[in-house]
Amino acid sequence: MMIDLNADVGESFGRWRLGDDEAMLDVVSSANVACGFHAGDPLTLTATCRLAAERGVVVGAQVSYRDLAGFGRRFMDVAPAELTADVVYQIGALEGICRRFGTRVGYVKPHGALYNAVVHHDAQAAAVVDAVLAYDRRLPVVGLPGSALLRRAAEAGLRTVAEGFADRGYRADGTLVPRSEPGALVTDPGEVAERVLTMVTQRRVVAVDGTRVQMRVESVCLHGDTEGAAELARAVRDRLTAAGVTIAPFVALPTEQGQTPGERPSSPETVDG
Amino acid sequence: MMIDLNADVGESFGRWRLGDDEAMLDVVSSANVACGFHAGDPLTLTATCRLAAERGVVVGAQVSYRDLAGFGRRFMDVAPAELTADVVYQIGALEGICRRFGTRVGYVKPHGALYNAVVHHDAQAAAVVDAVLAYDRRLPVVGLPGSALLRRAAEAGLRTVAEGFADRGYRADGTLVPRSEPGALVTDPGEVAERVLTMVTQRRVVAVDGTRVQMRVESVCLHGDTEGAAELARAVRDRLTAAGVTIAPFVALPTEQGQTPGERPSSPETVDG
Amino acid sequence: MMIDLNADVGESFGRWRLGDDEAMLDVVSSANVACGFHAGDPLTLTATCRLAAERGVVVGAQVSYRDLAGFGRRFMDVAPAELTADVVYQIGALEGICRRFGTRVGYVKPHGALYNAVVHHDAQAAAVVDAVLAYDRRLPVVGLPGSALLRRAAEAGLRTVAEGFADRGYRADGTLVPRSEPGALVTDPGEVAERVLTMVTQRRVVAVDGTRVQMRVESVCLHGDTEGAAELARAVRDRLTAAGVTIAPFVALPTEQGQTPGERPSSPETVDG
Amino acid sequence: MMIDLNADVGESFGRWRLGDDEAMLDVVSSANVACGFHAGDPLTLTATCRLAAERGVVVGAQVSYRDLAGFGRRFMDVAPAELTADVVYQIGALEGICRRFGTRVGYVKPHGALYNAVVHHDAQAAAVVDAVLAYDRRLPVVGLPGSALLRRAAEAGLRTVAEGFADRGYRADGTLVPRSEPGALVTDPGEVAERVLTMVTQRRVVAVDGTRVQMRVESVCLHGDTEGAAELARAVRDRLTAAGVTIAPFVALPTEQGQTPGERPSSPETVDG
Repeated sequence: MMIDLNADVGESFGRWRLGDDEAMLDVVSSANVACGFHAGDPLTLTATCRLAAERGVVVGAQVSYRDLAGFGRRFMDVAPAELTADVVYQIGALEGICRRFGTRVGYVKPHGALYNAVVHHDAQAAAVVDAVLAYDRRLPVVGLPGSALLRRAAEAGLRTVAEGFADRGYRADGTLVPRSEPGALVTDPGEVAERVLTMVTQRRVVAVDGTRVQMRVESVCLHGDTEGAAELARAVRDRLTAAGVTIAPFVALPTEQGQTPGERPSSPETVDG
Repeated sequence: MMIDLNADVGESFGRWRLGDDEAMLDVVSSANVACGFHAGDPLTLTATCRLAAERGVVVGAQVSYRDLAGFGRRFMDVAPAELTADVVYQIGALEGICRRFGTRVGYVKPHGALYNAVVHHDAQAAAVVDAVLAYDRRLPVVGLPGSALLRRAAEAGLRTVAEGFADRGYRADGTLVPRSEPGALVTDPGEVAERVLTMVTQRRVVAVDGTRVQMRVESVCLHGDTEGAAELARAVRDRLTAAGVTIAPFVALPTEQGQTPGERPSSPETVDG
Repeated sequence: MMIDLNADVGESFGRWRLGDDEAMLDVVSSANVACGFHAGDPLTLTATCRLAAERGVVVGAQVSYRDLAGFGRRFMDVAPAELTADVVYQIGALEGICRRFGTRVGYVKPHGALYNAVVHHDAQAAAVVDAVLAYDRRLPVVGLPGSALLRRAAEAGLRTVAEGFADRGYRADGTLVPRSEPGALVTDPGEVAERVLTMVTQRRVVAVDGTRVQMRVESVCLHGDTEGAAELARAVRDRLTAAGVTIAPFVALPTEQGQTPGERPSSPETVDG
Repeated sequence: MMIDLNADVGESFGRWRLGDDEAMLDVVSSANVACGFHAGDPLTLTATCRLAAERGVVVGAQVSYRDLAGFGRRFMDVAPAELTADVVYQIGALEGICRRFGTRVGYVKPHGALYNAVVHHDAQAAAVVDAVLAYDRRLPVVGLPGSALLRRAAEAGLRTVAEGFADRGYRADGTLVPRSEPGALVTDPGEVAERVLTMVTQRRVVAVDGTRVQMRVESVCLHGDTEGAAELARAVRDRLTAAGVTIAPFVALPTEQGQTPGERPSSPETVDG
């Protein structure tokens, strides 16, 4: 049994530090690296991509609205053509940084308000998909199961990767409990670890109302910028490996030389995290 | 006989338009496309790269300090490691946009205050060279003959491309007349065209004091954002071609598929603009 | 009979020029000056406020979402407290510039997507009103008749100024014809001038379906960044003055020294444009 | 005996937190509040100005180059007219925020690379002075003793406030030991407190080579963003008050209503912190 763990990293900016990238990169198999639009100055991205490359962690482009002041957390009504161009720009910029360390961008995952928007906003979902098609149609797209993003991506022939959230509460319909409601966050490390294990091995999660919800995911997202994030992430990893689950990225680690993206194995079974 | 003509394009930003990219791209063989740090939002860059690709014009990364408000025209004392990261980020971002149109970044040329800084500022010159080495050591670097940039690039084994300026006055030592002094700009299209022809065919230029100055350049820079820029550019091109000079890029047009940068011909003789 | 004419100015940014501020400031009595969030670097604002002060034109703060790349034309889901802080910051910044020329900010008018949002978006409308209350409750607020903004402002005890649009088509319900539909724009200068005259003297406008719509406005907005904008603006002004209408700001010209905002006349009858 | 203590606050930006404003504002009598160009989004500034107003701490405008990515720590060769406009814009923006809490900007102090530049860069020093003259000639200017800034300010008739640094080493000529050299920083809280006490009561400091250097300052700068900053600041304050020194701002707390800046006492003896 195998699962990918992902987390947001590279979210410092200039003088401002955020999260403990080094600790998180010791835990995850896939790193959602900021691309400069909501966070991540080029020097930060360089340090983060170096750490990821050293650990064999796959770098994903965590693309965002252009909104440093709002950390990409505010919905913006960006026209599709603009959004596509913005996303392409960000993937390319991050891949430029990656090349320095012999790696490449391995997947694309929207950030913050864009992540939430493309669950339902069809035009923006299609715009993100168009960006991946324009840049490199071999890049998988990570998103919420059932989202417009994954549906659009699948229709376009892209590989889709559904993800679950380690510490978020779910409702009976498989959607997340909004942060403003009780049960939105699970904070006990042991409980979080058990939930992830159930999600991975039994492909289900217990919703806030007690319902068992089917949940087939290829990756589990760990939050990196909260208090105790590194410890929680470590607890999840340890619980999974103790239960015999292998933590491995959902794509082979891309390398700049030799292997082109087309040669990447498409299933995690062939890789070793 | 053969020469490359280059000009700055892609320098609009959002609502603001600058220059006539379409007209300039009908004249030049190499396009210095802004990368978003001094100008060039991703949608503008997309339109510009599409036009360049359609015309077979080589796209160069016109990298800059991060300074939209100052259009990259103000010296910034950026630490070398930051500058290297900024330049890598910009090249990658532009190449991301290029991929959409089956082309790639063909060379790197600093913009504005960075261009001027790396004539003498050794640490920043080295930082730009480091960026090219990190990104793709097959990319030529364009700069002023005798600049620290070209010296550093040559030492690092990069291909260097010296450029002349069509409408700028030169001093007897081969440096440009500062814009604040008389003779800094040549504005008559016929005179500009003759100067470029002399530069190309006789490898010299007449300085403001009448001295004949040796001037071996592989490319000539045309300004695109001044009044009558397109007409002047057209006059230069027509004068050159009437005299039997072929306008051709100094690198083969890079394509995303098949041809890797390593297979690019290193001399303009093998290409046809 | 008296009316105020307003237009957007100060919308250049760094190297990029937009609109002909000098020409527009010869026509209008109130200038909606950008505040740096969608356009308007401080040097541009300085030049614009100087011109306005020299001509006795009242400066209004044209506040916006923080979105240079989108020119403030993209809706952003900004939290009320953030929006209030952003608006206060912008008013203060512009007033800082004004002080240099012995004038002050005379009113507040939202720009672009924010202008459209506060027609219906109650929380953002209230946030803008809160900003004016926090900054100076004597400043009038300009907006669309019937908008949430003007309703909220009136409820808070602020002076409200309803404005009409010189060159936009109206629907029978008094709302604007969307730009994507026929009749959205009136382009003939003579026709525009007549419409404005009817709006001012007869307090009505003919809608696209021929209906006569009641339209009580204290100010008429002229667009400054379109082709032929200055000529159209001039035609409107000339038609109004020929018909005996006085062009005058809706607030007395604020001065830094002596007169405080509280001493401003609240009706245009007492001022002389 | 009386001294002002100042520190940089309001230097968070959006999602990113920096420093412990609340703790520092319990210690200092003057707060150098960022103005948005190197740090300080409007919502952060609002929270910071509220805290300052509640504690009776005077707010100063900590003006900077426009450089969020570099935190204003990189020299920028900004033209004087641009710099003046940028500084005026920043003072006004911050004062806008202040008004909400019944206070105003009480002084101006350059930040980071601009602070260092105006020690020697005469044109930029003059540009900052011009900004204060344009905005409000009653505002004092804070800077290094002997700097071009204070000289220019004095020549222009502005009140100047020389400041010392609590935790920085000095050379025999009264300049600071560069951060790259030994003795640049004093880190022991007790030693720092003693140095400040000597600076205040005996008007001298012991340089790294043991020389006693004359040092007449009206304010002492405490750093707020280093490890243990709040404890060190508290130690300084406690040592001073234990020795009978009163901590008080060098200007009376400005209030929006009633008292105009012209009525501010010009010497610290008349105020009560």
